[in-house]
Amino acid sequence: MKTRFTTLFGVSFPLMSGGMMWISKAPLVAAVANAGGLGVLTALSHPDPEAFRKEIQATRALTAQPFGVNLTLLPTLKPVPYERYLQVALEEGIDIVETAGRSPEPFMPLLKAKKVKVIHKCTSLRHALKAEALGCDAVSIDGFECAGHPGEEDIGGLVLIPRVTKALQIPVIASGGFADGRGLVAALALGSEGINMGTRFLLTKEAPLNEELKQKLANAQENETSLIFRSLKNSARVYDNEQAQAILRLEAAGKGIEEIAPLASGLRGFKAYQSGDDQHAVLTLGQVVGLIDDIPSVEELIQRIMKEAKSLIQERLTRLL
Amino acid sequence: MKTRFTTLFGVSFPLMSGGMMWISKAPLVAAVANAGGLGVLTALSHPDPEAFRKEIQATRALTAQPFGVNLTLLPTLKPVPYERYLQVALEEGIDIVETAGRSPEPFMPLLKAKKVKVIHKCTSLRHALKAEALGCDAVSIDGFECAGHPGEEDIGGLVLIPRVTKALQIPVIASGGFADGRGLVAALALGSEGINMGTRFLLTKEAPLNEELKQKLANAQENETSLIFRSLKNSARVYDNEQAQAILRLEAAGKGIEEIAPLASGLRGFKAYQSGDDQHAVLTLGQVVGLIDDIPSVEELIQRIMKEAKSLIQERLTRLL
Repeated sequence: MKTRFTTLFGVSFPLMSGGMMWISKAPLVAAVANAGGLGVLTALSHPDPEAFRKEIQATRALTAQPFGVNLTLLPTLKPVPYERYLQVALEEGIDIVETAGRSPEPFMPLLKAKKVKVIHKCTSLRHALKAEALGCDAVSIDGFECAGHPGEEDIGGLVLIPRVTKALQIPVIASGGFADGRGLVAALALGSEGINMGTRFLLTKEAPLNEELKQKLANAQENETSLIFRSLKNSARVYDNEQAQAILRLEAAGKGIEEIAPLASGLRGFKAYQSGDDQHAVLTLGQVVGLIDDIPSVEELIQRIMKEAKSLIQERLTRLL
Repeated sequence: MKTRFTTLFGVSFPLMSGGMMWISKAPLVAAVANAGGLGVLTALSHPDPEAFRKEIQATRALTAQPFGVNLTLLPTLKPVPYERYLQVALEEGIDIVETAGRSPEPFMPLLKAKKVKVIHKCTSLRHALKAEALGCDAVSIDGFECAGHPGEEDIGGLVLIPRVTKALQIPVIASGGFADGRGLVAALALGSEGINMGTRFLLTKEAPLNEELKQKLANAQENETSLIFRSLKNSARVYDNEQAQAILRLEAAGKGIEEIAPLASGLRGFKAYQSGDDQHAVLTLGQVVGLIDDIPSVEELIQRIMKEAKSLIQERLTRLL
């Protein structure tokens, strides 16, 4: 399948595995690349820029296909040396960068000078238009259903995706709520050039988390997520476990970031992924988990999605006419 | 275009104009029927069952095509004689009924005995499965984006629609977030047999509301709705105007239904539709308003949607393969 996404990034299929903290490491990203999709390594899953450099090299050892890196610009308690992570990526020849969170504006001169293709992930028309104006090559637009940060406007993908695709000239990647060929065809019908999936790739053989935890999450339903951090104006959709409920109680009691943030520490999430503890850490999860009930390999998954999408277009949709 | 929806209801196109209080009257419903879609009259827009009988007769005078009636079973301050409205519909030969709100269970024996085709509108997989088990002929599933009552689980249509279409045997109509051919094709790709639109039909020439108000609402954006009544566990998506903000302030202050409900009285809404007052009544509105910017006739709208859908399938989607 050829779209402006596949042409721009030099991949076979209009599928992207967006950056997932602790998860988007060499084995998963290389598997996505080898299966014909676009994978991105998360820079900040590494303790320092040199560890990140080793992960880029490890990925390159596993695939000859294009892949990118994710740089998520979010409020953090201690400052992050974003420039150094980015410099390492450039030194290692990375030419696709997914930015998320705050505006990529400060990094655009460098990125454009190095001819890097920039995908900015955002959650509103306003920010998508801004990203286009800044010179981004594509935007990935996240609807309300998505895992992680959906913004504060709560616009469902069915409305947000066609709104943004119609307003922008650059390719738009649909994100949030996608897991299968049905979603891919829907996203293409809504004007996007491909889909960005997180939760679906989290629940694949190559994702680096405890196998029992994977199976538990694959069994979760669409109504088992909750939005934490709304009171901090930094909403995040996560698995609705004991930890999320504890955070929501603190928010309801009017507590501030100092008391709430420690419960959501990244290190706690990292440990939970290793140990399989499904109740005592914040685990990012999208509503689309309700459409997922197996743990395929990345290759099986991508082949299945493309086969389903083709058959939907050639058979179901064409026959309706 | 032929789907299980068009076959079941004997209409030309897989498009439905769901029941809108005060709006779904003879001129709009007949226009939808004459244009090849399925329109439904709202029973409770009439002060008594005999006034409703006259509206059914007025609709029949305007069209020879099938149309139905909507019976919304919601908590009300004074009891509504639902059975008498239903009896009038049956006496007038109505054989398509859209139920919404509470379960249609008490009415199913009568409806099935009279061979009425029942569409139950609901907002969760659980209620959709229940409707199928009760013998409903179709369900219309409303995602989080929708105008009016999205339920309390907040599942976006991109996830809810494929979840429900896969689990049910009966035809599923996708509702919430649809206004154009892109949405129709997306809904069909997600497994539904057609789309149910409210806000889009509200903003047509035949809808009985003040013309200036129509234009104001057509200019509204996707982030200009709000969810009121969440604290009453009866969430409703409405235009984010002064009245909605006043209600949200009462809810934030912990006020109960006695203080909140009068601000949302139906009569106030009815008067606002007549007068064009866009700030001092609750006006039901979906996020899809952000995709709407004109006031076509129903015939123009339906032709445009079908043309766009066909071209999307035959050109854009087919060429990607």
